Amino acid sequence: MENLLPSILSHEGISRLADGGLYITDRRRLPFEDVEVFCPDAWAASDAIRSMVTQGGGPLEVALNALLLTYRTDRDHLEEAAAALMTARPTNTTMRREISSIMEAYSSGEDMEELIDEAFCRYDGLYDRISDIGAGLIKDGDGILTTCFPEHTFMLSVKKAAMEGRRVSVFVPETRPYLQGAHLTEPCLREMGIECFLITDGMGAHFMDEGRIGIYMTAADLVLPDRTVVNKTGTLSNAIAASYYGIPYYAFTLGVDSSLRKEDIVMEERDGESIRRIGDVPVASEEAMALYPCFDIIDSSLVTGIVTEGGVI
Amino acid sequence: MENLLPSILSHEGISRLADGGLYITDRRRLPFEDVEVFCPDAWAASDAIRSMVTQGGGPLEVALNALLLTYRTDRDHLEEAAAALMTARPTNTTMRREISSIMEAYSSGEDMEELIDEAFCRYDGLYDRISDIGAGLIKDGDGILTTCFPEHTFMLSVKKAAMEGRRVSVFVPETRPYLQGAHLTEPCLREMGIECFLITDGMGAHFMDEGRIGIYMTAADLVLPDRTVVNKTGTLSNAIAASYYGIPYYAFTLGVDSSLRKEDIVMEERDGESIRRIGDVPVASEEAMALYPCFDIIDSSLVTGIVTEGGVI
Repeated sequence: MENLLPSILSHEGISRLADGGLYITDRRRLPFEDVEVFCPDAWAASDAIRSMVTQGGGPLEVALNALLLTYRTDRDHLEEAAAALMTARPTNTTMRREISSIMEAYSSGEDMEELIDEAFCRYDGLYDRISDIGAGLIKDGDGILTTCFPEHTFMLSVKKAAMEGRRVSVFVPETRPYLQGAHLTEPCLREMGIECFLITDGMGAHFMDEGRIGIYMTAADLVLPDRTVVNKTGTLSNAIAASYYGIPYYAFTLGVDSSLRKEDIVMEERDGESIRRIGDVPVASEEAMALYPCFDIIDSSLVTGIVTEGGVI
Repeated sequence: MENLLPSILSHEGISRLADGGLYITDRRRLPFEDVEVFCPDAWAASDAIRSMVTQGGGPLEVALNALLLTYRTDRDHLEEAAAALMTARPTNTTMRREISSIMEAYSSGEDMEELIDEAFCRYDGLYDRISDIGAGLIKDGDGILTTCFPEHTFMLSVKKAAMEGRRVSVFVPETRPYLQGAHLTEPCLREMGIECFLITDGMGAHFMDEGRIGIYMTAADLVLPDRTVVNKTGTLSNAIAASYYGIPYYAFTLGVDSSLRKEDIVMEERDGESIRRIGDVPVASEEAMALYPCFDIIDSSLVTGIVTEGGVI
């Protein structure tokens, strides 16, 4: 399965242990520069996650590698390292759950090297099984709308549908302010040989109205037990439009978060500076007040199905 | 009324006759640089309109001034100048209708100087009356969502509502790819002393979901007799979300275009280059295929009302 993935989603393309530390691919600089951030320890890795060096499924792999690094080099501070990693991104419950469960198994005597290795393998298998289900939802001729950077499960679903002979194309909103769609999703799909069109964030409904979208598919930062989806801002707008046009909306998740309720969601609000600038380039007045809520909360009534390891729920 | 407007919407702030030609404020470079493009004749002015030096209500005033310039300096080519101006932006039917009607009146013996002067005055009066109606739709405490740069009628509506003592704030999507929201709408509102928040194009539904939007108001490039609204891409997405949340959507127009049917609309498709770049700065791979349809077509079922000179229809 690893060889079907675009390069930046391979394990080495996300992060790698070398030179006594951890190299993390800096997704903020893709696709223009292919550089890595070097983290000498788990605290630096935690900072890197916090400052969006990697995101989506990236923090999970970085956290696993950072935990392994700490185990190998600074075992006395393993608990503190785990705590720092788990709080690096409040909404990433997959990472928190995984690190927590590994620490628990370790404290009851299991081998850390094996636990980490087993976790990497488990996620590979999960991506493979979920994308088998995702691919089955894509019909021949489908225009697929997405939002942000839906990573392994979506990429593999589209690739598998194409490999099974179905003609597909993907409409990719650029996803301001961080431009994950333009910087990550579009280059990945192109590398995989999938026809894709870059659009702006307000254009999803336009192409639905023209009848060019057959299915809407995104990742999910969180899925609550009542099927409420939490994902990148912009997801909601397209989900409402999909519902309006009778287009199915599926969200991919590695696991429903059974412990969370809607009231518990910590909404990350980021600095308006990222709206006023693109990289170093000002795109608005310095004096402009800008709002940047990180996530949309999408009511389950707008969600056709959640694509999980066990099937569509 | 002129003194209520933000500076770039004053007559002189749009275009002015001087030095034997026409100066047009280059909106593409606002708010960072305040520069004018000099057009020696109507053909240059027509090219300037085509290359988006000004847009929205700008082309109408530029066309009036360019016609006056031609009348004063090159009267033999008045018909050709009028034809060039009328085709500079296919979707701008207000400009086409106005130039056509002035040329007709002129050919039946009326005075060109007076005709142009009368047209400027007529639009000032129109903006004033329409914004009286628009202001009446805005309630105390309303968060107002807009899209793109809704110009005179919207700006004056918000200003009048504020002057009548109602607390209002405006949520302004940046409006990629040309960023009219960030470059024009937000600075205008700020200059007018109106609280406003710059957001990205995918965030409208987010703030509706949070209950922060009381009304959605945009300009309209075109309104068809069946109340179908044609406006900047991104308008539709927010109109669908407004309908979903039961938030009223009003579009401002100077006049319903009684001669057009939905089938007749010429959809302008622009070069994907403007999605791949912001100004000179690349924001996506050069190899990315990008789509940029200029306008959304918003079905009348999504429109609460069209704000016209004669009232809300």
